[in-house]
Amino acid sequence: MPTTLKSFISVSPDSHFPIQNLPYGIFSSKNNSTKRAGTIIGDQVLDLALIEQRGLLKQCYDPSLALFDSTSLNAFVEQPRALQKQVRETLQKLLSADNAVLRDDEALRQAAFHAYADVTMHMPGKIGDYTDFYSSIDHARNTGVLFRDKDNPLLPNYRHIPVGYHGRASSVIPTNRSIKRPHGQVVPKDATDPIFSPSKALDFELEMAFFIGKGNELGEPITIDKTYEHIFGLVVLNDWSARDIQKWEYVPLGPFLSKSFATSISPWIVTLEALEPFHVTPRAQEPTPLSYLQFNKDFSLDIQLEVAIKTTKMIKPEVICRSNFSYLYWTMAQQLAHHTVAGCNTQPMDLIASGTISGPEVGSFGSLLEITFGGAQPLTLSTGETRVYIQDGDEIIMTAFCQGDGYRVGFGEVRGKIVG
Amino acid sequence: MPTTLKSFISVSPDSHFPIQNLPYGIFSSKNNSTKRAGTIIGDQVLDLALIEQRGLLKQCYDPSLALFDSTSLNAFVEQPRALQKQVRETLQKLLSADNAVLRDDEALRQAAFHAYADVTMHMPGKIGDYTDFYSSIDHARNTGVLFRDKDNPLLPNYRHIPVGYHGRASSVIPTNRSIKRPHGQVVPKDATDPIFSPSKALDFELEMAFFIGKGNELGEPITIDKTYEHIFGLVVLNDWSARDIQKWEYVPLGPFLSKSFATSISPWIVTLEALEPFHVTPRAQEPTPLSYLQFNKDFSLDIQLEVAIKTTKMIKPEVICRSNFSYLYWTMAQQLAHHTVAGCNTQPMDLIASGTISGPEVGSFGSLLEITFGGAQPLTLSTGETRVYIQDGDEIIMTAFCQGDGYRVGFGEVRGKIVG
Repeated sequence: MPTTLKSFISVSPDSHFPIQNLPYGIFSSKNNSTKRAGTIIGDQVLDLALIEQRGLLKQCYDPSLALFDSTSLNAFVEQPRALQKQVRETLQKLLSADNAVLRDDEALRQAAFHAYADVTMHMPGKIGDYTDFYSSIDHARNTGVLFRDKDNPLLPNYRHIPVGYHGRASSVIPTNRSIKRPHGQVVPKDATDPIFSPSKALDFELEMAFFIGKGNELGEPITIDKTYEHIFGLVVLNDWSARDIQKWEYVPLGPFLSKSFATSISPWIVTLEALEPFHVTPRAQEPTPLSYLQFNKDFSLDIQLEVAIKTTKMIKPEVICRSNFSYLYWTMAQQLAHHTVAGCNTQPMDLIASGTISGPEVGSFGSLLEITFGGAQPLTLSTGETRVYIQDGDEIIMTAFCQGDGYRVGFGEVRGKIVG
Repeated sequence: MPTTLKSFISVSPDSHFPIQNLPYGIFSSKNNSTKRAGTIIGDQVLDLALIEQRGLLKQCYDPSLALFDSTSLNAFVEQPRALQKQVRETLQKLLSADNAVLRDDEALRQAAFHAYADVTMHMPGKIGDYTDFYSSIDHARNTGVLFRDKDNPLLPNYRHIPVGYHGRASSVIPTNRSIKRPHGQVVPKDATDPIFSPSKALDFELEMAFFIGKGNELGEPITIDKTYEHIFGLVVLNDWSARDIQKWEYVPLGPFLSKSFATSISPWIVTLEALEPFHVTPRAQEPTPLSYLQFNKDFSLDIQLEVAIKTTKMIKPEVICRSNFSYLYWTMAQQLAHHTVAGCNTQPMDLIASGTISGPEVGSFGSLLEITFGGAQPLTLSTGETRVYIQDGDEIIMTAFCQGDGYRVGFGEVRGKIVG
C-alpha cells in the first residue's frame, strides 16, 4: 500500500491511526450506549455498524450478516481473509481524500464519526481460550538468573519448545479499567508456612498477543506454512503478575491465581495486513528447531514497545522500558504451529500472548522483576520516589507502534491502575 | 426427598437415572437433529424443550425464555437456585406414578420420550474457562514418589493450597468421541534432544468436575460459605494425558499440549440437589488450612468411581480401577473459594475439575502411571494382554454413582477410544 495514501481526516505523523492502519475495536459512544464495531483514523472513531447499515460495505458481504452491528468482532474475524481484505480496501477508499461519499455528506459524517476522547472502548469480542507463551529468551534468561542458576539460566527445553501455558480468559479486560490488588497465600521471608495477605510484589509484564481468526478442528494441526491464515491481528497486553503469590503456588502445575486476577489488553486489533510493511527477519535459532517449527518464509515484526508508570505524584507518565517485538526468540508462526501440533483446536477470538518481551540490554526489560534485578536495585523515578513493585494508585501504560516513512501504524495504549 | 418417590416409567434399581436424579444434558434424536435440552429417567430421555414449549414448566418461568429450547444449558445454569429447584420439583411431579398429565397422554409421551440408545449426546453447553485441580493427596503422593522424592513425595505447598491450573476449554469433548493419538516433542531414553513422535505414553486420569452456575464478578471473591450457591452440578471427566510429552514440556509453566488434545466428559450434569443424600465428612486436613479455606458446614460426597478398559480383543470392558470422590483432600468448596480469592471471576458453565482421584490402596489408583508404578509393573488383563499405557483401539470407560437405599444416583459413562 502506498504511504502517500491520504485521508480527508487530518492525521498527524505521530498518530497511531493513519489510513494505513484501520484497526478494529468495539466501542460505545455518549449518545449511544450500544456496543458496536468501529475503526479509528487520527482521533476519530468511525462507526462501522452504521457504515454497514447504510450499505457502504455491501459489495463485500450481505449487510444482514451484521458483522459490525454486533457487540463483538467474533463473526468478522472468522470470515475468509479475502473478504476481510476487501473490507479494508473499501474502508480505505471511503476514507481517502479523493472520495466524496463520506467526505461530502455532512450528515453522514456527523452520525458516523465520534471523537476518540468521547467513546468508551470494550473487549473486542468473546475470547474462547487464552494462552500465554514465554517466547522472549532474554526474559527467560533474566528470570532464570534470579530464580535458578546464574551460570545456566535457561531450562533444557527452552531452545527446543516454544514453552507456553493456558491462561484465564474470563479475566482479560479492556484498557482503562482499575485492577484491585489481589490477596492470596504468600510465604514471608524466613518463614515456611504461608499467610493470607495482599500481594506485596505486584508486577506488570509487557507482552503482545494475537487473536485467532479462522480456527482449526480438534486433531487437525495448523502446519507452520498455514499459520498466518489463522492470525487475525495483534494487541498489546499487560500480564499483571503477583510475584509473591506466584512463587508459592506455581510448583508443579504453573502460575494460577498470581495471573488470573486481571490481564489488560489494548482496545484496537491491528490487522496482519496493516503490519505487512514492518516485517523483519526473526532472531537466529540455535539449535535448528524440529521440522514442524521450521518456516523459511517466516518473519518477525519491528514493533517498538514502551512501558510507562504514572504515580499519583506525577503530572505525566514516565517511560521505564523500551523494547521491541523483534526481540522474541519464538515467532507467532512457531507458537501457533506448536500449539496445535498435538491436536489442540483453536477458535475465532482465541487470544495467544507472547510472554514478557524483554531485550538484551538494561532499559529493555519488560517487568519490574527484571528492571530491579529481583528487588536488589529499586527503580528511582523523576519524582524521587522509588519502586520495587507497583504501589496502590500507580498506573501502568503500555504502547506499541511501527515507524513507517512519515507515518506510524500503532496500537494505542493499554492502561491500568492498581487500587487497594 | 423420599426414596419411595416412584415414576410411571419403570426404572431398575441399578439404573443411574431414577426419578431422584433427573440430570440435565443436551441431545439430538434420530428424527430431529436439533440440539436441545433433556433429562433422563431409566433408559428414556425426556425432551425438555418440548415440555417447555407445551407450557408444562410455565409455573416456574416464562417459556419464552427458552431455557431448554436451546443448544446449550448456559442460560439455565445461571438462573436463581430457587427457580432451578422449582423446575426439578415440577419435573418430578410430571414423572411421578400418580400424575396423569404425561402418563395418560399417549401422543405427548410419544413425542417427548426417546430411547437413550437412539439419541446422540452433545456438550452440555459452551464452557467459558476450564480449570483442573490436583486435589487427591494419594495421587499427588504417588506421582511424587515416581518423579521426585520417595521419602518426601509431597511438595511444601500441597497441604496449604488447593493446587490447580488452567486447562484448555476448546478441547473438552462429549462422550463417545474417538481421540487421535497426539504427536509431539518427546525425549527418548538416554537422549538429551527431543524427537517428534506419536506419544508412546498415553494415559487416562479419572476425575470429576463441577460446572459453575451463577458466576462472580472480577475482584469479588466467592467466600467459602457461598460456594455451593455457585456450583450447578457434576460430571465425570477423563483428563487424557500424554506422559512423555508432559515430562519434557511442563517445566516451568505446567502441562500444555500433553493435556490439551482432548478432555472427555460424561453427558449428564447431576445437580447438587440430586446429590444431597450422599454427603459425607471430608478427609481430615493437617495442618488446618488458612481461614478463607475453612468451612465448618463443608462436606464431601460418597460417589463410587470406576475405570474400565476395552481392548479390541475383549467382549466386554474390564474394570481396572475402583475409587471414590470422598478420597479427595481438598473439597469443591475449598477449590472454588481458593480459585476466586485473588479476584478471578467465574462465568456460567465454567468447568472445574478435581484432578486425578486416587485412593490410598492398590486398585484405587486413577491413572495407568500409578497403576503400573511408572511402567515398572505392567498391567495384565484377562485376555493375557499387558498394558503400560493405552494402545490404539483401546477404549476407556469411566462411570460414577451414589448408592442410595434401593436406588442409585449416577452419572452414566464417559467413553473414549484412542485411534492412531
